[in-house]
Amino acid sequence: MSNPTAAMLVIGDEILSGRTRDANMHFLAQELTKLGIDLKEVRVVSDEAPAIESAVRALSDDFDHVFTSGGIGPTHDDITADCIARAFGAHIDVRADARALLEAHYKKSGQELNQARLRMARIPDPATLIDNPVSTAPGFTIENVHVMAGVPSVFQAMVASVLPGLTGGRPLLSQTLRVDRGEGDIAATLSELAEEFADLSIGCYPFQINGVFGANVVVRGTEGARIDAAMTRLARALEA
Amino acid sequence: MSNPTAAMLVIGDEILSGRTRDANMHFLAQELTKLGIDLKEVRVVSDEAPAIESAVRALSDDFDHVFTSGGIGPTHDDITADCIARAFGAHIDVRADARALLEAHYKKSGQELNQARLRMARIPDPATLIDNPVSTAPGFTIENVHVMAGVPSVFQAMVASVLPGLTGGRPLLSQTLRVDRGEGDIAATLSELAEEFADLSIGCYPFQINGVFGANVVVRGTEGARIDAAMTRLARALEA
Repeated sequence: MSNPTAAMLVIGDEILSGRTRDANMHFLAQELTKLGIDLKEVRVVSDEAPAIESAVRALSDDFDHVFTSGGIGPTHDDITADCIARAFGAHIDVRADARALLEAHYKKSGQELNQARLRMARIPDPATLIDNPVSTAPGFTIENVHVMAGVPSVFQAMVASVLPGLTGGRPLLSQTLRVDRGEGDIAATLSELAEEFADLSIGCYPFQINGVFGANVVVRGTEGARIDAAMTRLARALEA
Repeated sequence: MSNPTAAMLVIGDEILSGRTRDANMHFLAQELTKLGIDLKEVRVVSDEAPAIESAVRALSDDFDHVFTSGGIGPTHDDITADCIARAFGAHIDVRADARALLEAHYKKSGQELNQARLRMARIPDPATLIDNPVSTAPGFTIENVHVMAGVPSVFQAMVASVLPGLTGGRPLLSQTLRVDRGEGDIAATLSELAEEFADLSIGCYPFQINGVFGANVVVRGTEGARIDAAMTRLARALEA
């Protein structure tokens, strides 16, 4: 059986303008790989309702899980929750369970739970809350979409809340061989290897350090013994 | 007149598996912002032909420019050029002009121009070449799609080759005010500011350092005087 699939939707003008370098994609990719869920696509869209709605619909249709980051804070440009409710035709308003969490949090910290902060309790009716141990305001899961914050520390805490509830697959294993030759020199060998080990993925990632070309050959798959066999074959072929 | 729009397509399993952290998106976003071309969407897809073809078609239809990175090297998993030719119904084969570049380069370096390396001369018939001053093997432009390498040093050099030929718009200017208050405290002020300055984009990016919450308020637009006015209004409102 093949592994479950996933997509990520990053929401935020600050990434697209180059102001901020996204960190959540790399984190989520690593966590999903460990769990045996195959991340197949990532989209980054701006804080515009039509872009968010059409991307979430497309990704929700095409993949087993969708993870979003960004746009669920208290300010006017945080429109993700409402967009996702619309994408699923769900009613959304301040919800009692989310409001109770915020009330307790702000009471404890002596801050006011004003109208802006209450926006963070807007949760679609059919959604379940995602725990936020960092700053309380919850994320939520609706159908196969997990809606999370963009601030990396909060995003990571929410991912840790969500992943244990998902059914993983066979974790993707990999081994890497660094080769100090240009990839054009080893391409024929890799092509033969890829044909012989069609159940594995053979990737070649060139680099250039101080004018010297080399490549990292990465062999990925779910069966350790097969990867071992491919690596042994590869090492012999490159010695020859 | 509004600025030209752009999308980016990142091709590579190594990003989606979390092995490599993409660097090209952030670089391209900054370069396009300087030029007044609005990056509206980024997609990251795996090294699979259907994913590449459908993404490039969708993005080419929706935006003025598309920039791709990755998958144009000499190895078996480098399938970008062929996928993009198919997406546009264009014929592709080793092309004389690209072959001549590679012949001169490998002759000079004393390396063999083997079958694998010749794959890097596969260019769709109607495309124009993109100069690669780092490692010679060219990228290409077909219709509104600019096809470039994934290795950051090569990607950056190709972007430098392409951008001067594009018509930019009004560069996006921005100013940032750092506020040492939670974004929930300033959200109402920002909402009023966003209404009054509807021609500007007002973003709020929360952070947490040593347990203290704060936010960077970023005001973006194409008219410096309007941004100045908004920043003055913002500073006064937050003092009050």
